[in-house]
This record gives sequence, structure tokens and C-alpha cells, in this order.
Amino acid sequence: MASATEPSAAQGTDTGAAQLDEALAAAASIATTWASAPGPSRARTLVAVADGLDAAVDELVAAADAETALGDSRLRGEVARTTGQLRMFAELVTRGAEIDAIITEADPSAARPDVRRMLYAIGPVAVFSASNFPFAFSVAGGDTASALAAGCPVIVKAHEGHPRTSALTTAVIAAALAGAGAPESLLQTVYGLEAGRRLVVDPRIRAVGFTGSIGGAQALMALAHSRADPIPFYGELGSVNPVIVLPHAAGSRPDTIADGYIQSLTLGVGQYCTNPGLLFVPDDGGLLAAIGRRARAATGGTMLTERIYQQFQRSVDEPAWSQLPELGHGSAAGERAAAPQVRHATLDELHGAIDALARERFGPAGLVVTYDDPMCLLELLPRLPGSLSASVHAESDEYELAATIAAALTTRAGRLIFNGWPTGVAVCWAMQHGGPWPSSTEPSTTSVGATAIRRWLAPVAWQGWPDELLPQALRRDNPLGLERVVQPGPVA
Amino acid sequence: MASATEPSAAQGTDTGAAQLDEALAAAASIATTWASAPGPSRARTLVAVADGLDAAVDELVAAADAETALGDSRLRGEVARTTGQLRMFAELVTRGAEIDAIITEADPSAARPDVRRMLYAIGPVAVFSASNFPFAFSVAGGDTASALAAGCPVIVKAHEGHPRTSALTTAVIAAALAGAGAPESLLQTVYGLEAGRRLVVDPRIRAVGFTGSIGGAQALMALAHSRADPIPFYGELGSVNPVIVLPHAAGSRPDTIADGYIQSLTLGVGQYCTNPGLLFVPDDGGLLAAIGRRARAATGGTMLTERIYQQFQRSVDEPAWSQLPELGHGSAAGERAAAPQVRHATLDELHGAIDALARERFGPAGLVVTYDDPMCLLELLPRLPGSLSASVHAESDEYELAATIAAALTTRAGRLIFNGWPTGVAVCWAMQHGGPWPSSTEPSTTSVGATAIRRWLAPVAWQGWPDELLPQALRRDNPLGLERVVQPGPVA
Repeated sequence: MASATEPSAAQGTDTGAAQLDEALAAAASIATTWASAPGPSRARTLVAVADGLDAAVDELVAAADAETALGDSRLRGEVARTTGQLRMFAELVTRGAEIDAIITEADPSAARPDVRRMLYAIGPVAVFSASNFPFAFSVAGGDTASALAAGCPVIVKAHEGHPRTSALTTAVIAAALAGAGAPESLLQTVYGLEAGRRLVVDPRIRAVGFTGSIGGAQALMALAHSRADPIPFYGELGSVNPVIVLPHAAGSRPDTIADGYIQSLTLGVGQYCTNPGLLFVPDDGGLLAAIGRRARAATGGTMLTERIYQQFQRSVDEPAWSQLPELGHGSAAGERAAAPQVRHATLDELHGAIDALARERFGPAGLVVTYDDPMCLLELLPRLPGSLSASVHAESDEYELAATIAAALTTRAGRLIFNGWPTGVAVCWAMQHGGPWPSSTEPSTTSVGATAIRRWLAPVAWQGWPDELLPQALRRDNPLGLERVVQPGPVA
Repeated sequence: MASATEPSAAQGTDTGAAQLDEALAAAASIATTWASAPGPSRARTLVAVADGLDAAVDELVAAADAETALGDSRLRGEVARTTGQLRMFAELVTRGAEIDAIITEADPSAARPDVRRMLYAIGPVAVFSASNFPFAFSVAGGDTASALAAGCPVIVKAHEGHPRTSALTTAVIAAALAGAGAPESLLQTVYGLEAGRRLVVDPRIRAVGFTGSIGGAQALMALAHSRADPIPFYGELGSVNPVIVLPHAAGSRPDTIADGYIQSLTLGVGQYCTNPGLLFVPDDGGLLAAIGRRARAATGGTMLTERIYQQFQRSVDEPAWSQLPELGHGSAAGERAAAPQVRHATLDELHGAIDALARERFGPAGLVVTYDDPMCLLELLPRLPGSLSASVHAESDEYELAATIAAALTTRAGRLIFNGWPTGVAVCWAMQHGGPWPSSTEPSTTSVGATAIRRWLAPVAWQGWPDELLPQALRRDNPLGLERVVQPGPVA
């Protein structure tokens, strides 16, 4: 579909209805073939895509820097993360680890049939890419990698913040797919809000992946759920990412904690869904003062888009926020530049205005909340909205307290971090990047890590089939050598 | 909460807002304790509940037969299925099989932290029980069993078709919980549509399980998704369950197939979500005639409720249905009694009216669709709505064709059956009871089988924690002896 997408991007125009229909038809036409391609074959294609992107890194980074101002080193790191992600899923499907086979052997004495269950690709999926990761959560990003690995053709709705990067990425991938002998329509890119809306309601699309704002997610999720045949909508949205500093940690290493906090808060001009929006510290002077000093010395920078900049300004102009005392305000220069700011509230003040204060301000704005007694946090934490992460800083002599706090956080966040900061999500097997609303729309799923692939798969149980008609993954002699869970039949 | 629920049931009145609030508060108050109870302890409670139900089987069956007319032997079987289900989940959590631990060891050379992920109970859940299974999909049914096993307190909205059975089941469970030293508020039952609606929108409820009609699901799902914090809605709805009889199977054993079909179609007066609503057979006389004979000899019976009976009558009075030629019409006597009926359409006729004909008629009504060339089915099958099951009947000399048909069905149904019938869902580890809309609202989940428990769990990743602060399931020496997936760190 390079033919359908490149002109749009080159001209900066939205994808029209006819082009979109062509893209959907192309995706649907190859869905069964791609779903039934053996894992190692899908893996080779993913690796070819990763190699193609790595080879084009200079061009890709130049295009993205011009559109997002994220800077060369950050963007190079992001391309590496993106290709690493493709290779991780390639490794996963080479081993058949996504198949999740469960076998129940027949038990005639209990009238129990032979039942064999595995996961299957659900069909073409739509992926909505994010503004803040022009590679890792965009055309070639995590949702695309996991969906392709699962066996689903992907149509990406490019983010309007980096259309040229999206078009270039699409072209690089198209060349890599062609080189690997795979259909180019495995990955297609479309442009414009209307094309995005049409994607979500088209019967050929079987699930949606989304990374972005709460408002954007709500609109698209409503479309997905109002279809004649509602489909899953997997959104990764905003998050306030509470960080709790326990008293002894605050007392023993205020400078280290203040350094880590300001670095995490201002990384990428604060434009991370894992940004530490709420920091809880004991109500004594040392750490607060250290944070104030570093906030005043911090520099912000150009935000991703004018729209994001305007939204950030509006969010810090809200009275509930702007009337709070400032611990420190940094500097910023340039177009659409945001300066770091850190404000202060007491735990009681947060309790009294939790909806207004415990919410994401996408940018370098942090709220430091002081507490007298850490046990009082146990009343507050269950009231916080769901987050992608929650962090605890503790010394070894306050581990009991740390354990109590952590237990209270397990139903509030998808990832719990010890003596660390939430920005920087490792792409690894065990990663969980999700959580209760509004951090994600489906708390049982993740958008980063090996299990992200499960969003694009659905189980099918085969009951009573002769061996020669079963998929290889379910045959009695296990020809693929998979790890399978087996409920044994009666012992002979 | 027996105090809150028994008076309602005894008086046949709906649960009021104050009683409901009391039930929700009770569920919320024990959620953390129950979620963190060790698996073997949760398992003992489930087994105590199962034992209590088994001991009360005579009373339970008498109550249910008076309300549903399902008959003694069917209902005894259903109680056994229900308690077997509780014991299956008890066994599962005794082994910790629901925890699904994945460990990523740190790799400092790749700046990769130590990340350890496991599943946690998501909090109190609401379960909407079904009309047609007063035990197995009701107060003590599959959703309750899997949610309790997962560590979630349950509030059941009783089906209005069997309130006394629901109240009696609740009382038996309350006694069993008390005897086991578990809080009675682990399982509470409420009555009435308004109480059901309030449950779904209450912030203390973290997910909804539902078994019932498409219309009922749509209304409640919209409520769940329109909350300020949308929650997962796991519905198991209607299904048309296509059955495809290939030519040689039809030719070689018409009587066996006709017998199996009519039995499956009329079982429980056709009131199963797995009822074989669409049967595809070759266009020749033998099998059609055999089906017609058995349909005319078949007897129906009293339906579950007056409302279901009226709905069935309306569904078979629709012109699209009633104008089709009848292959056979059976008999029925008694109050709200439905007679089996089997009608006939060609594949072309089905193509032309697929929305009207390829949909569930909840009751003993079957459509037999004749085809000339089985390859023409490959155009039709992708157009069918999602189903809980699809079945293929084939002889060994048409296995190639059977495999082609099965491949086309993997994205249309959650369970594929060979030379069998869809009614009767074995409760076993590998079972899949779900599928694309409208068979379920979340095709990646199941409401029967071991993996049903995953609906009530959400992952949490622990990043960088010292061993003594980790949950036992994630500690480095694996003290619970769990099967865990490990992404190893660098070899020393």
C-alpha cells in the first residue's frame, strides 16, 4: 500500500475514503495467510523490518528531529528501542511462546472430550500512534510489532505531529517487507482524523491499539464499542505516576532523590506518560528545599507540537493548580517552550481537591505533596486514579512500611518501582505497561513487554479432532516442541 | 450479608439502594484481605462451598425445578457441574497456576532492571446470572467460582427467573463460608434490575461478568463503559453455533447425524447458548428427510420463563423466518410450552437475508441450509456472526475439505467441534467458551475453563525490589515452587 499512503504524506493531505478502503481491503486479503504463517517465518519478517530501520537510522532520526525537536541522541536511542522490540517479538514467536497451548486429554469416565486450546490472530488491527514517541509508539512501534508478531496485518493512523517521519518509516518498512518477500500491505499508514474514525468502525478491523490522551481515547473507544459488532479497544492513556518517599529515605539522601526527581520530571520536556506527576515527601525542610533549588535550575524546552504546548499552558493556568505555592520554576527558551514548574500541597489539600490535582499535566509540571505521618498515605492512595506506575523510596530500616505502602498500590498501578523513577520503560518479557483507568482502557493487558502480544490473539479450543486435522501446535506428538499445559486423562 | 439479601428474596422484592450500598461496602471492606489470602486458603473456602452445595442438592434441585421446570436429572447434573467447577478452580489456585509469573532478570550491560510480574485480583466484581442455568451460570456459577478463586469478592445480581433458588443458594453458601471461617460477604446476592444497574456504575465494582441476552448485555456494557472510570465488561451472549455436515458424512450416516442434531437442538427446550441454530447439509434428499422425520417426532416443553417464551414466539413469527418452508414441526404441551421447529433455506437464501436468518432464536428452532458445493461455504462462513462454537462432521476421505472449513472457522468461533454437537460444554482446563461478538464481548476471554480466572486478574510488575519486599510468588528462591517464565540475565 505504499502507493496509497505515500502521496498523502508527501502532500501532507489526509487519506481519502477510497484510499482507506483500498488499504482495508489489502489488509483483509492477506489476514488469513499471515495469521497461518509459521512463527519462525513471521519472525524473519520482523527481523528484516528491524534491520531496515536500523540501516535507515540517520534519515529517520533527522526527519523526526525536524518534526518533534526531541534531539539526536534521544531519537537514536528510540530507534534502537524500536528495533529491539521487533526482535524481542521475533524471538518470542520463533519459540511459539505466544501460542499458550492448553491440552485437556479425554476422560471417558467423566464424559470429558479431548479439548485442545491455542491462541490465534484476531485479524487486521488499527493502531493509533502517539505524539511523544515518533518511533517506539508510532508506525513501527510496540503495538505494530506485537500485532505483526501475533499474525495480524496492521493499519497505523499516523500522529499529526510527525507525518513525514511516519511516511519515511512506512517507506523503509515497505522496502524491508518487499526484500523479505512479505506483502507490503502487512503494514500500511493512513493520515487524518477522519481516516482514523473510519478505521475504528470498519468491519474489517478486529481490534484497536491506541497510545495518547484520555479525550482522544474516549472518542475512539465509544466508536469501537458502538459498532454493530463491538471490538476490543486497547488504549494506553494518561497517568499521574505517584512516587512515595518514605521518611528515612528523604532524610538520608535528599540530594540524590531531588536529582532523580527533577531529571525524571523534566526528561523529554516532561512529555512521558510515565512522568512522576505526584511526589509524596515527609513534611520537613531538607528534601523540599533540595527539590526547590533543582527546580529553579532546571531548563525545559520545545514541546512536541503547538497543540501540546497550548494544552500544557492551559493545564498549569487552572486555578486549582496555579494558586498552589511554587517550590521552584525553571527556565525555557525557544518556540513553544515549556519551563519546568514544581508546586506544593499538603496531603489534606490533595484530599480536598483530588480530581483537580491528581491528574496528568502532560509536560514538566510536578506536584510535591507533604505528609506528616506516612500511615495517612494509606487513606489517600486508594483514592488516586489508576496509574501506569507507582514508586517507593525507602531505606532498609523502613521496609515494613514500604511493604504496607506497596500492598496498597497493587490495585492502583501496573508497575511498582523501588528506589527508582518511572520514566524509562524497559522492553523485556516481564514488563507491565498498563493499569486501571485512566492509565489504560483494559487493566488486564499491557502495551509493552512480551505479553503485549496477547491483545491481538484470541483462544480457539479444538474438541474431538483427529490428530491429522489439528494445528501442529496442538498435535499429540507436539511436533513444534512447545511448552504446553496438559490436564492429563485417566492413567491407563 | 445474608441479612441484606434474604429478606428481599423471601419477600420477592428488589434490593433497595441502602441494602445495596451495605453489600458494596461489605465487599470492598474485605477485598484486600481476600486478594492476599494464600491460594491454598482460598481453595479450602471454595471446596467448603462446593461441599455445602452438594450436601443441599435435594433442596436446591427442588427449588430450581419449581422455578425453571428443567427437571430433576438435568438439575442434579447441573449442581454436580457447579461444584465440580468450584473444585477445579480450587485445584488451580492451590497450585498457584493463576499467578502467571514472568521474571526478567537484570542485565546491567543493557541498562535492564530486574522486573517481576504476576497477576493480582482486581477487586470486587458484579456477576449477572443467567436464566437457563440456575446453578452453573447463576449465584454459585462459573463467574462466581472463578472470581472468588482469583481473590475477588462477588456480588451476584440474581436472575428474575429463579429468585428462590438464588436465595437458597446464597444461604447455603453463607453457611458454608461461616463454617470455613471465611467472611459471608465474599458472596452476596442482590435482586432487581435497578440494583443491577447500580452495581455496574458503583466505583467499588472493578469488573462485570454477564451471561444472557445481547440486549441486556448492550445496556449494561454501555453503563460500564460510560463510568468516569470505565471497567471491563465480560459478557457471554447469544450465538448461532453453525454446524457443517460435509457430503460424505451426510451420505454415510444420515440417521446418526439427524438424531444428534435434533437431540442437541431440543435439549432443555433449546434454551442453550450453544444450541445448533444453523445446520449446513448437502442438497440431497437423505439427510434432509431424516431430519424432517425426527423434527416431527420431537417434543418441546415448558420454557424457563413467560418472557423467554414470548420472545421465542416473536422470533419464530418474524416473516423472514416463518415464510421459510418447514422441514418438520414437533409438539409441546403445558404452560408456556414451545414446540421444536426446523425450517429450510438454500445457501443463496441465507446469503440474501443473513442478518435476519443467521441469528439466535433462543429456543428449539433450527435452520437447515442446503449447499450444492461445499467450497461455496467458504464465502458464507466469514459473513456469519461470531459464535461460541462451530462444528464439522466429516468422513476420513474428506479430511482435506474439513481442514479447509476449520481454518475458515478459527476467526468465527471460540470452539471447534469434530463429529459432535455444541451443547454440553465440558468444564476443563482447555475449554474456550467465548468468541467474536455477539458470542462474547471480549473475544480474548472465556467464561468456562481454567483461563476464565484471568478475567478477574490484572498484572503488576515489580521493578528493582529487594527480595524481602517481593510477594512470595516472585522471590528469587521461588518459595512457592511455582512454574515461572524466566528471561535470564547475562551468564556470569
